[in-house]
Amino acid sequence: MTKTIAFAFYPGCTALDLVGPLQVLSGLPQLDPSYEVVVVGADTAPGATDTPLRLAASHTYEEVPDPAVVVVPGGGEPTLAALADEALVGWIRRTARTAGTVASVCSGSLLLGAAGLLEGRRATTHWGLRWMLPAFGAEPVAERWVEDGPVLTAAGVSAGIDMALHLVARLTGEETARTLQLGIEYDPRPPFGAIDWDAPRVAELAPLFEKMVADGLAGQPELLARVRAADPR
Amino acid sequence: MTKTIAFAFYPGCTALDLVGPLQVLSGLPQLDPSYEVVVVGADTAPGATDTPLRLAASHTYEEVPDPAVVVVPGGGEPTLAALADEALVGWIRRTARTAGTVASVCSGSLLLGAAGLLEGRRATTHWGLRWMLPAFGAEPVAERWVEDGPVLTAAGVSAGIDMALHLVARLTGEETARTLQLGIEYDPRPPFGAIDWDAPRVAELAPLFEKMVADGLAGQPELLARVRAADPR
Repeated sequence: MTKTIAFAFYPGCTALDLVGPLQVLSGLPQLDPSYEVVVVGADTAPGATDTPLRLAASHTYEEVPDPAVVVVPGGGEPTLAALADEALVGWIRRTARTAGTVASVCSGSLLLGAAGLLEGRRATTHWGLRWMLPAFGAEPVAERWVEDGPVLTAAGVSAGIDMALHLVARLTGEETARTLQLGIEYDPRPPFGAIDWDAPRVAELAPLFEKMVADGLAGQPELLARVRAADPR
Repeated sequence: MTKTIAFAFYPGCTALDLVGPLQVLSGLPQLDPSYEVVVVGADTAPGATDTPLRLAASHTYEEVPDPAVVVVPGGGEPTLAALADEALVGWIRRTARTAGTVASVCSGSLLLGAAGLLEGRRATTHWGLRWMLPAFGAEPVAERWVEDGPVLTAAGVSAGIDMALHLVARLTGEETARTLQLGIEYDPRPPFGAIDWDAPRVAELAPLFEKMVADGLAGQPELLARVRAADPR
């Protein structure tokens, strides 16, 4: 039986959160035909992202009720607003009952949290939002990706590529992951080196994230209060 | 006057070739409002990629006649077929006359070549296709990205992210690039390390690329013959 890897798409999400791991995993069916990859949304019409590009899903939630793997991208304010999107969160909650892996990229882990999947688990998210995780019962971890049972959460945006290669290895073995890495020529060379986490800009950007959360959760005052009350900082 | 950074989209291209650098550069207008970012295609209807995701451009070629920066993604057979797409290649050729930078990711450099932009220049592309560059008058270079005057070519797929950070620094300075790097948390950690270019799988995959080129250029026998005749291997 074909195992389905389903990526969620919802309007306003961060394009690279979705496309990074999608590009890695889309190569898998050629190497292991027991897998298929789909992109699932409320409908298949083009929807906005946080870039000028619009994306269109291949299937609706109803058409993909029992994927083997779920991957949920994050984003800014639209992702925070989507914590109240019961069509999306309900689909994550239902598919998680039988999926072997429920993965997220960036603030997508908050959507897993809204679906009740982070309770008592170690998890990560975008570095600027890790303080939000305790509100969902999770222990925040500053790693590139965090695996806790069936739940696999990645750090911000580009971390989805690293997480996806790990996921491929978990599904089919390291050889397959290395072949897919070669296919996308993932031999990263950031021109200015790795991120310097002690640089002043890290602290300087923090207020921007707090404003984003306040704006994104404007329609969910109870959740905003709960998130602030659970902030461990 | 607003400077336009225009990404090309054409059906069948590799999603990450486009979305990697797009995610980086889409953050630029917030830091430097003298820039705007658009995605340009033959039309704005959703078109296929090499993944199950469809993408939709924000503007047509006609609507963006004089961008300051052009970025062209690559792909597999559809990109090779697109070397005969005069709407796309003509737009690249025309915009290159005034654009300060014409950039490509992966086999997108072949489209720059078809537009006559690689003659006498150092350039790169996906590692599996570097042998094709001499047919376009280019000197193939095995680097993550290669800058030769206004022409900036990146290696395969994921190299577009590194190239885009370099491009941001070239446009607005290193500080801006570092801030955008932090925004997308680009602190790469490939789970199995860097690519081992001496691994047997590298040589094993080479015939797949030759078949892809033969299939993709089936409608352009003269170009296929020219590419094979110029193969330096």
